[in-house]
Amino acid sequence: MDTNVSNSWEQRDMQAVFHGFTDLGTLNAEGPVILTHGDGIRVFDVHGKSYIDANSGLWNNVAGFNHQGIIDALCAQARKFPGYHAFFGRVADTTVALSEKLIELSPFDAGKVYYTNSGSEANDTVVKMLWMLHRRNGQPQRRKIITRVNAYHGVTVATASMTGKAYNAEFGLPLPGFLHADCPHYWRFGLEGETELEFSARLARNLEELILKEGPDTIAGMFAEPVQGAGGVIVPAEGYFEAIRPILRKYNIPFIADEVICGFGRTGEMWGSVKYDMQPDIIVASKCITAGYFPMGAVILGKAFCDALMKVSEEAEEFPHGFTAGGNPLGSAVALKSLAVIEDEGLLGNVNKVSGRFMARLKKLGEHKYAGEARGVGLMGAVEIVADKKTKQPLPGHLQISERIANKALKKGLICRPLGQAIVLGPPFIITEAEIDQIFDILEETVDEVFADVGL
Amino acid sequence: MDTNVSNSWEQRDMQAVFHGFTDLGTLNAEGPVILTHGDGIRVFDVHGKSYIDANSGLWNNVAGFNHQGIIDALCAQARKFPGYHAFFGRVADTTVALSEKLIELSPFDAGKVYYTNSGSEANDTVVKMLWMLHRRNGQPQRRKIITRVNAYHGVTVATASMTGKAYNAEFGLPLPGFLHADCPHYWRFGLEGETELEFSARLARNLEELILKEGPDTIAGMFAEPVQGAGGVIVPAEGYFEAIRPILRKYNIPFIADEVICGFGRTGEMWGSVKYDMQPDIIVASKCITAGYFPMGAVILGKAFCDALMKVSEEAEEFPHGFTAGGNPLGSAVALKSLAVIEDEGLLGNVNKVSGRFMARLKKLGEHKYAGEARGVGLMGAVEIVADKKTKQPLPGHLQISERIANKALKKGLICRPLGQAIVLGPPFIITEAEIDQIFDILEETVDEVFADVGL
Repeated sequence: MDTNVSNSWEQRDMQAVFHGFTDLGTLNAEGPVILTHGDGIRVFDVHGKSYIDANSGLWNNVAGFNHQGIIDALCAQARKFPGYHAFFGRVADTTVALSEKLIELSPFDAGKVYYTNSGSEANDTVVKMLWMLHRRNGQPQRRKIITRVNAYHGVTVATASMTGKAYNAEFGLPLPGFLHADCPHYWRFGLEGETELEFSARLARNLEELILKEGPDTIAGMFAEPVQGAGGVIVPAEGYFEAIRPILRKYNIPFIADEVICGFGRTGEMWGSVKYDMQPDIIVASKCITAGYFPMGAVILGKAFCDALMKVSEEAEEFPHGFTAGGNPLGSAVALKSLAVIEDEGLLGNVNKVSGRFMARLKKLGEHKYAGEARGVGLMGAVEIVADKKTKQPLPGHLQISERIANKALKKGLICRPLGQAIVLGPPFIITEAEIDQIFDILEETVDEVFADVGL
Repeated sequence: MDTNVSNSWEQRDMQAVFHGFTDLGTLNAEGPVILTHGDGIRVFDVHGKSYIDANSGLWNNVAGFNHQGIIDALCAQARKFPGYHAFFGRVADTTVALSEKLIELSPFDAGKVYYTNSGSEANDTVVKMLWMLHRRNGQPQRRKIITRVNAYHGVTVATASMTGKAYNAEFGLPLPGFLHADCPHYWRFGLEGETELEFSARLARNLEELILKEGPDTIAGMFAEPVQGAGGVIVPAEGYFEAIRPILRKYNIPFIADEVICGFGRTGEMWGSVKYDMQPDIIVASKCITAGYFPMGAVILGKAFCDALMKVSEEAEEFPHGFTAGGNPLGSAVALKSLAVIEDEGLLGNVNKVSGRFMARLKKLGEHKYAGEARGVGLMGAVEIVADKKTKQPLPGHLQISERIANKALKKGLICRPLGQAIVLGPPFIITEAEIDQIFDILEETVDEVFADVGL
C-alpha cells in the first residue's frame, strides 16, 4: 500500500470501503488495487499499471472492458429513457424486446421472462416462485431446496443457503431445508476402480435416496449449474445429468439450470444446459447477459412452469414480488446489444475458435509436478494443485498456495483467481490465441517462482 | 389492450414478460402500458400518450426521467470504465469517491460503505452481517430480526420475511425468527382516548415485552424505515423513535435505519433517520442514490459497528459475501452525480420549497367525505379512504376503491399508487407547485368520478 503518500487512493479506499470476498490479511499487507479504466482484456490502476484480466472481471466482462458497440447502445438508451420500473403492468419497450430475444435464444419453445438485478436475486426469486406454486397447489410442505456441494447460487440468505461452500457457516447458514447433494467431480470424489459412468450412476442413486429420506413431497425443486463455476470449474462427470434427470421427473421435482456463469457462451454453446442436455424447467441467467456493463438477472420460465405459475398468480390476484430496478429500460437495451454482440459479432464463435489453445495450455500446465488435475470446457478452466499427484492430497493450508500464485501473478500484471487450492481462469470471449499464450506464459513462470519461494 | 393489432407491443409483452406486483385481473382486462421515454415528470407510452408520474417511478426517479446532467455523467463514465467488480481488494476509483461522499453525507463521523444492487440485497446483507458478527462474538443464537407490521424491506426470502405485509403468506413467509413489532400508525392503531405520546410509550413497552419474551440475547437487530413507505406513508407517531431507542440500547440490539425510500431528501431532510432522531448503527440506502438511473444499494456502516464487523471479518480472513455488480464504476459515477444534483442543484431545497403546497393539497383531498386520513411529510403523502370518517371502517374490499381510482387516473394521464385503501403519492423532487396542483386537480376529479361510478 502506498502508505507514504498522504491521502492516496489506496488510503482513501481503506478508510471508506468495506470489502467483501477479499482476503483481509492480503488487503492489509498489500493494499487495494484501485482501477480507473480498461482496454480490451486489460484493466488499469491509478498508477497506470495494466493487468490482463484472465477472469473477465467475474466471468462477465466477456466483450472486454471498453466495447464501443455496447457503450454506444448504453449511451443511446440513456439519452432516450434511462430508468423506469416494471411494476403495475407498466414496462419499457426495450424490456419487451429483450424478453422476446431471451425466449428465442432459450431452449424453450415459449415462456416468459422475469427480471432482477443479479443472479442472487434471480435464484432467490425462483425459490419464492416454487414456494408459492406448491403452496397454492395444496402442497405447502413442499419447501426443501436441493443443490449440490460446491454449488454457487448467490449470497442472499436463501441463495447462500443454496451455495455449497464452507464459508457460509460464518453466517450460520444454510438455513434448515436447504439440502446439498453430491458434487459431480469424478477426479475428486470417484472411488477406486469406479468408472465415470458408474460414478454418475452412484450420485443418481444417492440423490434418489436423499429424496426418499426427506420425502418426495417435501422437495420444492433442484438447482444445478451446468458446470460449477465458483466451485472450481467442475465439469460434470460423464452421464451425470442423464442419470439424475429421470429421478427428478419421477418425483415431479422442478429442475432449474443456474446459467449465471455458463449462459451465453462460456462453455462454447449458448447454454450449458443444452451442452449437457439438462432439460430444465427454468433457466436463471445473469452476468454475460449485459457483458458486465449493467447489473441484471433474468428468470427464464419454460412454458409449462410459466403456465402453472401464471395460474396460481391469477388466483392470488398477483405475483407479489418485484425489484425496483428489475427489467429497467437501460439494462434491457444493454442486454439486447450484448446478446447481439455475443451471437452476431462472433464472440461465441471465438470461444470455440480459441478454446483448443486454451485447453491445450491448461493441460500443459496440468503436467506440472504439483498439478493434480487440469479441467475445463470452452473458455473456463482450472488447475488443481496437490502435494501428490497420485494420492491427490492437497498441500498444507498454511502455504496458501493458490493465493500466493494469484498475488504474485498480480504483481506481474495478470489477474487470475485462487479457489481452494485451484487456480481458475475464465478469459473474455474476445481473447486471441496470442493473448492466451501470454496468460499461460506468465502463469507458468509464476507457478515455478512460487514453488521455489515455498521451498518445494 | 390493443388486441386488434396483430403483434402490438401489448401483445408482445403479454407473450414474453412475467409481471410482478401487477394486478393480473387489471392486466388481463386493460393490457400493459409499454413506455418508450420520459420528459421531466412525465413518461410516454408507445402510442404517444403521456403520464405525469406522481410516484417518481418507485420513489426513485427524483430528478425526472431525462436529467441531462446525470445522463452525461453516466455516458462519460461508460466511455471511461463501464464495468468491474469490487471483490479481491480491487475496486474502481469512482467507487472509492462515492464511499467518501456517502460517509460525508451520513450522520456518522466515520464508517465504511458496502455495495449491492438493490435495497433488498442491502437489507439481506445486513442480516448476514449481524449473524456473522454475533456468531463470531460467541452468540450464535442471536439470530432473530425485529421489524414492524407494514414495514417494507425487500423481496428476497429474508427481506420479504422482514416485510410486514400480508401478501408474503403466499410464499409461506415470514421464516421463523423474523418478528414483527407494532406499526407506529397512531390514526389506525391508537386507542380511544390515548394521546400520541401515550401511544408511542405503549408501543415501546410492547417492544420491550417482545424482546423479553423472546430473550434479549436471541435478537440480532432491529430494522425500521423512518417513514414506512410501501406500508402507506406511515409517519411515525410523535415520540416513537425517542421511546424505542433506549430499549434497543438497553439490550444492546443494533438498530438499522432502512432509508431506501427516505434517504437523500424525500422527507425534506437528507436522511429520515436524522429528521426523526433515530441514531442508527447502520443506514441502508438505495433508490434516490442514483436517481433511478442505475440499480444500486449501499450499506453505510457507522464506525462502531464497522470496527466490530472488521474485527470478526479479519478473524475469519474475509467477509465472505459479495454481489458481482456491487460497487461497480458506472453505478458509482451515476450515484456521485445524482447526489450532487440533489445536494447542490437545489433538488433537496425544492422538496422543502414545494412541500407546503403538496401537503396543503393533500389535506384538502383529505377533507373528502370518504377520506379518513391525509398524512405525509416532505414530498411523500397518502390519503386513506374509509367508509366512515368516525369509525375509520374501510370500504368493502370487493369495491377495490384505490385500484379503481388509480386505474381511472391512469386513463387521465396521471400515475398514482393504490396501497391497501390508500392512494400514495411521492412526486419527483423537481416538481413545481403548478404541477402539484395539476396532480391534485386530476386526482380530485378522478375520486369524485369513481365514487359516482360505485354509487357512493
